[in-house]
Amino acid sequence: MELSFSESHLRKFTEQVFLTMGCSHEHARLAADVLIRSDLRGIDSHGVARLSGYVRLWKKKRINSTPDIRVVHETPSTATVDGDAGLGLVVAPFAMNIAIQKAKACGSGWVSVKNSNHFGIAGYHALLAVEQDMIGIAMTNASPLVAPTNSAERLLGTNPMCYAFPASKYPPMVVDMATSAAANGKLEIAQRAGKPVPEGWIIDKLGKATRDPHALKSGASLVPLGSDKEHGSHKGFGLSATVDILSAVLSGANYGPWVPPFVSFLEPPADPVGEGLGHFLGAMRVDGFRPADEFKAHMDQWIERFKSAKPIDPNTPVIIPGEPEQEAELERKSTGIPLVESVVEDLRNLASQLGIQPL
Amino acid sequence: MELSFSESHLRKFTEQVFLTMGCSHEHARLAADVLIRSDLRGIDSHGVARLSGYVRLWKKKRINSTPDIRVVHETPSTATVDGDAGLGLVVAPFAMNIAIQKAKACGSGWVSVKNSNHFGIAGYHALLAVEQDMIGIAMTNASPLVAPTNSAERLLGTNPMCYAFPASKYPPMVVDMATSAAANGKLEIAQRAGKPVPEGWIIDKLGKATRDPHALKSGASLVPLGSDKEHGSHKGFGLSATVDILSAVLSGANYGPWVPPFVSFLEPPADPVGEGLGHFLGAMRVDGFRPADEFKAHMDQWIERFKSAKPIDPNTPVIIPGEPEQEAELERKSTGIPLVESVVEDLRNLASQLGIQPL
Repeated sequence: MELSFSESHLRKFTEQVFLTMGCSHEHARLAADVLIRSDLRGIDSHGVARLSGYVRLWKKKRINSTPDIRVVHETPSTATVDGDAGLGLVVAPFAMNIAIQKAKACGSGWVSVKNSNHFGIAGYHALLAVEQDMIGIAMTNASPLVAPTNSAERLLGTNPMCYAFPASKYPPMVVDMATSAAANGKLEIAQRAGKPVPEGWIIDKLGKATRDPHALKSGASLVPLGSDKEHGSHKGFGLSATVDILSAVLSGANYGPWVPPFVSFLEPPADPVGEGLGHFLGAMRVDGFRPADEFKAHMDQWIERFKSAKPIDPNTPVIIPGEPEQEAELERKSTGIPLVESVVEDLRNLASQLGIQPL
Repeated sequence: MELSFSESHLRKFTEQVFLTMGCSHEHARLAADVLIRSDLRGIDSHGVARLSGYVRLWKKKRINSTPDIRVVHETPSTATVDGDAGLGLVVAPFAMNIAIQKAKACGSGWVSVKNSNHFGIAGYHALLAVEQDMIGIAMTNASPLVAPTNSAERLLGTNPMCYAFPASKYPPMVVDMATSAAANGKLEIAQRAGKPVPEGWIIDKLGKATRDPHALKSGASLVPLGSDKEHGSHKGFGLSATVDILSAVLSGANYGPWVPPFVSFLEPPADPVGEGLGHFLGAMRVDGFRPADEFKAHMDQWIERFKSAKPIDPNTPVIIPGEPEQEAELERKSTGIPLVESVVEDLRNLASQLGIQPL
């Protein structure tokens, strides 16, 4: 069963939760905006469904609601940001804004972030650059659930990579993808449906293929994009490694198996190699390469050519990256945001714990 | 059957070929270096095996051996380069050197290139940045052989992405990968062996799975990394699209199905949307983010942790990206470069056509 909530109602509720955590009005508004935009864009796994998770980490003092986020190292086009254990939802837009300012001044800006936390959907941050006629890049590492090719040890997160490009007639193109074959959210859908997952998503703790969507609880791992070596899983591993290094080895955050877990019931590793988790944000001015209107006209042509590709099944056309999320956003802005019952109950419990107006 | 040649012998021969095409001594040396390094690193498909292909394109006047390569647009950290239809083997290092100079001046440099040609292995160019304690990025688009998810139309190249990172005790980590499930070189190996390829590499012109390694000749396509939608081929499509846009939409080169073919017997599309094919090169100074020795020490730790991951099969450890190429390079520098008989014959015919000393 699902209940539907208006964007504005859910937004106010979410802001109230962050305010109760002690966030400033500005931070509460921003953090809520990241979560609500995720729900609007149909990425339900990264929206208000995670709100109580952030609160639990704050209660455990693993999230700082009043962080002093600051640049600790920089050049004209690069910087490292210390997130002071703040909400990634706030730290990442701060860092992206620095990247954007640097891009305004010298063509591009690149910011590696340490001492942060889960930043929501990568696409939110990349799209901040697109609003300024820039190409936006956003990556983050995450708690280890993915095994590198040839091992069944969980050493990498689902480490998403996002590239977003402005177009003219069409909405921005947004490539926003976990570098694993399947993201955790897809397992959760299979768990709720009580259905096996396809082979090529998970291996058990001995490295054997399994289709059990609950297998991660007994030591199984997700596998990198490509699924197995024959189909290029070493490439997915390489992409995930790239995200980990740009986000954490470059900034001084924890990497690989040292990334602290998002869940509050698991303790962070006792031997950290850095601070918190890491992100990597980039912005490049389109007109640092060619006039923006030329670029956008060719983006339109690119999109049109691929949209008009002959489909294998006439009912299933080629989908431009970001198109489904854009459609969901338009629809949910008018019809509301559907939430499954368990999420609604979770949010109501949260309200009662925090002593705020229920959802 | 294979014959083995010393690096220096093969290098002199290759330089002689480029000199006979009319390249300057500097360009001939550089172009030969890119091809020989590919053979040294064990990427035989991109080395001297392609030499006669470059010559045929030059004979058809589709490669300019005396290009005026120049910057046509720039900011302190970005630039667009016009390759003047030169060898990509020469144009890409030119562009990477601009990226490196910009990184020296302001932390990072990003160069999009139009009007170029096949640039050899991406790793060569990315490693130029690593030599300067920078992170190197190299991408290129390529002639269309890959179908986007849901279509069987060939609209994208195998569009490689490369990220290279300096370490200290260990050789640089080099993620250098086609964004398709399998690269063309792997099909060629199966063709020579007369063996079927795994399902999930190719679809026929109706979009059905095929295992015939010759199927591309009858209109089949390679598929993006992920192989099918259930296993994330839309992600491989998104990565390939990203490479295409950064390399060509951003620079003013041809993109998607308009990319000119590398083979001389196929004519370029009659309705180009840009000039030649495109590359994208980037360099970021490590010390634009944190002291280089700190970064490299943590790279060493990253590499050690992943190398020591428990393997599923005790005989097959986790492989660090770039490790096999590094090992091949050490070995072949001392034992020589093995070439299959058909390549040796091709090079001997080439020598006789060009009237130079045979191999």
